[in-house]
Amino acid sequence: MDHPETSTRLEQQFRFLREIDRLKSIERQNILADASRRENSAEHSWHLAVLALCLAEHAAEPRIDLFKVVRMLLIHDIVEIDAGDAFLHDPEAIEKQAAKEDAAARRLFGLLPEDQRDELLALWREFEARRSPESKLAHALDRVQPALLHEATGGVIWQKYGTTHEQIQNKMSAVREASPTLWARVQVIIARARAAGRFG
Amino acid sequence: MDHPETSTRLEQQFRFLREIDRLKSIERQNILADASRRENSAEHSWHLAVLALCLAEHAAEPRIDLFKVVRMLLIHDIVEIDAGDAFLHDPEAIEKQAAKEDAAARRLFGLLPEDQRDELLALWREFEARRSPESKLAHALDRVQPALLHEATGGVIWQKYGTTHEQIQNKMSAVREASPTLWARVQVIIARARAAGRFG
Repeated sequence: MDHPETSTRLEQQFRFLREIDRLKSIERQNILADASRRENSAEHSWHLAVLALCLAEHAAEPRIDLFKVVRMLLIHDIVEIDAGDAFLHDPEAIEKQAAKEDAAARRLFGLLPEDQRDELLALWREFEARRSPESKLAHALDRVQPALLHEATGGVIWQKYGTTHEQIQNKMSAVREASPTLWARVQVIIARARAAGRFG
Repeated sequence: MDHPETSTRLEQQFRFLREIDRLKSIERQNILADASRRENSAEHSWHLAVLALCLAEHAAEPRIDLFKVVRMLLIHDIVEIDAGDAFLHDPEAIEKQAAKEDAAARRLFGLLPEDQRDELLALWREFEARRSPESKLAHALDRVQPALLHEATGGVIWQKYGTTHEQIQNKMSAVREASPTLWARVQVIIARARAAGRFG
């Protein structure tokens, strides 16, 4: 317990855990279900992890490592501490943002001891690559959660930012493959918002 | 996917997931590491889950089901939506609060389909009972996280609420058994705050 190596590891871990406290100050475009304020990325990550616990049964892929999905969701937004939260539709801007996020991941996860750095960096890159069943489900939930909040507020945020119906359907295509059940449910939310004239 | 049973389950799950959005509006006594505002219980739960991923290696008990610890931490504060966040030292008040929290757990987890209700209720009760190694580690992390934030702000919150050194050491006794390593680290934080005159 007083071994110097333990002490260094622990200090690196504390440093990282203090640094990621800043995720609580990163504001997203979404508002809370009660419309009182914008959501931050830390509480969003918590909400997503609970979504995973409750909704994993609706995944198209029957063999999902649920703990991996939860770990991905807990760390997927940490890069925003350096790179900000981007809600982008333009391919060029998306690519530029990806490079910023990769540098952010290397700096932030790099605060941890090497083995943990490598583990979280690999997990985050697996999420970003969207190839494994776990990363596909994680991305789908990341789309479903704002829709769930939008349902509570009638989609006013989509209207506020001038989002088009096509842009939203592009975003939601990730849900279709990962979970037809959740995709069908989200279509109900989008159809209602469309009928209410929320899309530009 | 359009099976009526699936649809009912999904509506119950969505109802629960929308209801727990309110945890983002429950303020804790802690302030963020940058002292900008008080922490809410949703972002606190996220932070704790990441603490578990990074610090589980310091647990005294070598065989820990880490996913169970993470699930406990993700749901442990949901009862505050009905019962509020209490920071109590008085045994009578603690007992009264426990009854309120049990009713809250039954109502809130009761929004879910029965099997998920039973699962989360059992998980929350295991956390509250503090007997399993997983619940002991979860409680320890719930004590370590505020100390980690207090270290960043020099323990001003302890001073603000007139917390005594004895009260804090009582709270921290949960850490000693679950992780001597983390307990020793927290003692450094408390000793520094004491030297700075933060305790009443």
